[in-house]
Amino acid sequence: MALYSATLENAIEQLARLPGVGRKTAQRYALFLLKLPEDDVFRIAESLANLKKNIRFCERCYNISETEICSICSDSKRENGQVCVVADIKDVYAFEKSADFGGKYHVLGGLISPMENIGPNEIHIRELVQRLAEGEHITEVILAFRPSAEGEATAFYINKLLKPFEIKVSRLASGIPMGADLEYIDEATISRAFSSRQNV
Amino acid sequence: MALYSATLENAIEQLARLPGVGRKTAQRYALFLLKLPEDDVFRIAESLANLKKNIRFCERCYNISETEICSICSDSKRENGQVCVVADIKDVYAFEKSADFGGKYHVLGGLISPMENIGPNEIHIRELVQRLAEGEHITEVILAFRPSAEGEATAFYINKLLKPFEIKVSRLASGIPMGADLEYIDEATISRAFSSRQNV
Repeated sequence: MALYSATLENAIEQLARLPGVGRKTAQRYALFLLKLPEDDVFRIAESLANLKKNIRFCERCYNISETEICSICSDSKRENGQVCVVADIKDVYAFEKSADFGGKYHVLGGLISPMENIGPNEIHIRELVQRLAEGEHITEVILAFRPSAEGEATAFYINKLLKPFEIKVSRLASGIPMGADLEYIDEATISRAFSSRQNV
Repeated sequence: MALYSATLENAIEQLARLPGVGRKTAQRYALFLLKLPEDDVFRIAESLANLKKNIRFCERCYNISETEICSICSDSKRENGQVCVVADIKDVYAFEKSADFGGKYHVLGGLISPMENIGPNEIHIRELVQRLAEGEHITEVILAFRPSAEGEATAFYINKLLKPFEIKVSRLASGIPMGADLEYIDEATISRAFSSRQNV
């Protein structure tokens, strides 16, 4: 709409690029920013620009980092030989929040998905194998993908590649989530919970 | 969390200032931006910084503008003598979208609300009276506030102030919205629709 100033129109268009943000929400964000003091808006804008200026990917595990090797990879307290392989950066933070895992990570940057044209070479699988080949002290690889066709395919493929190294390869347990009501659980989960049932 | 880089942490914190955006959503936005090309993120950041650099408020109607007087106020095709008084900038755009109104606006920047400590002097009521006192060609003032205690109070107050000018002061009709199902309409709206019923 020509009524908006070109500057406002541009800000709305740019904000609407954020995931899940439509034009209405972008407009709400822009009008909110208009009412903030100038310094505050500059601080927000600067924090976004800095994202790309300061942040790179760890050359070992592909987690985000402000240095060549990330803080997790260079933490000597985490030398327990376990490497947790995840699809995305945000999975690292989900696991770190629960604080159960004391090893290191490897971020694939996606899962194998023929539907989306993502093959093994589009994600950092080769680099995982390289870590083993280069003699990094790794005793167990934990595949921590969401239970889905893509997760299964990626786990299957990696498992095959890691066979020659004769190390333990495990997957996160799949089943009924804590506190969930059985009647609301989907059939695939129920069926997986049955087939993976454990002796008590 | 110290795991996040300080830069990412800062961006998340700043994004979480947006209305309705919690930490989780801010994190999603930040990780999305991280994956965009650098130029794209700079363009987004710049569009936000420009908001405060380029946009000011129209000195006549307090709508946003990139010039002293906004494009609506300086549009000679809209000299029909009607002034639509609204609470907020976004109301202007809501009305402009429906394109039923061909006059000008006056943006109060809020409504009188004793609960939120907003009195008549905190919003641009005096400036509306000034427009009339200074001889602007105004034949009708349309009060277009949402039906609420604050809307009523503001309308009542402005109506009193405009009495001496002997011009038409009107309010938007309040009632049952188009297409609404009667059983889902709240009682206050039903009651207003009854008391404002019109002959057919």
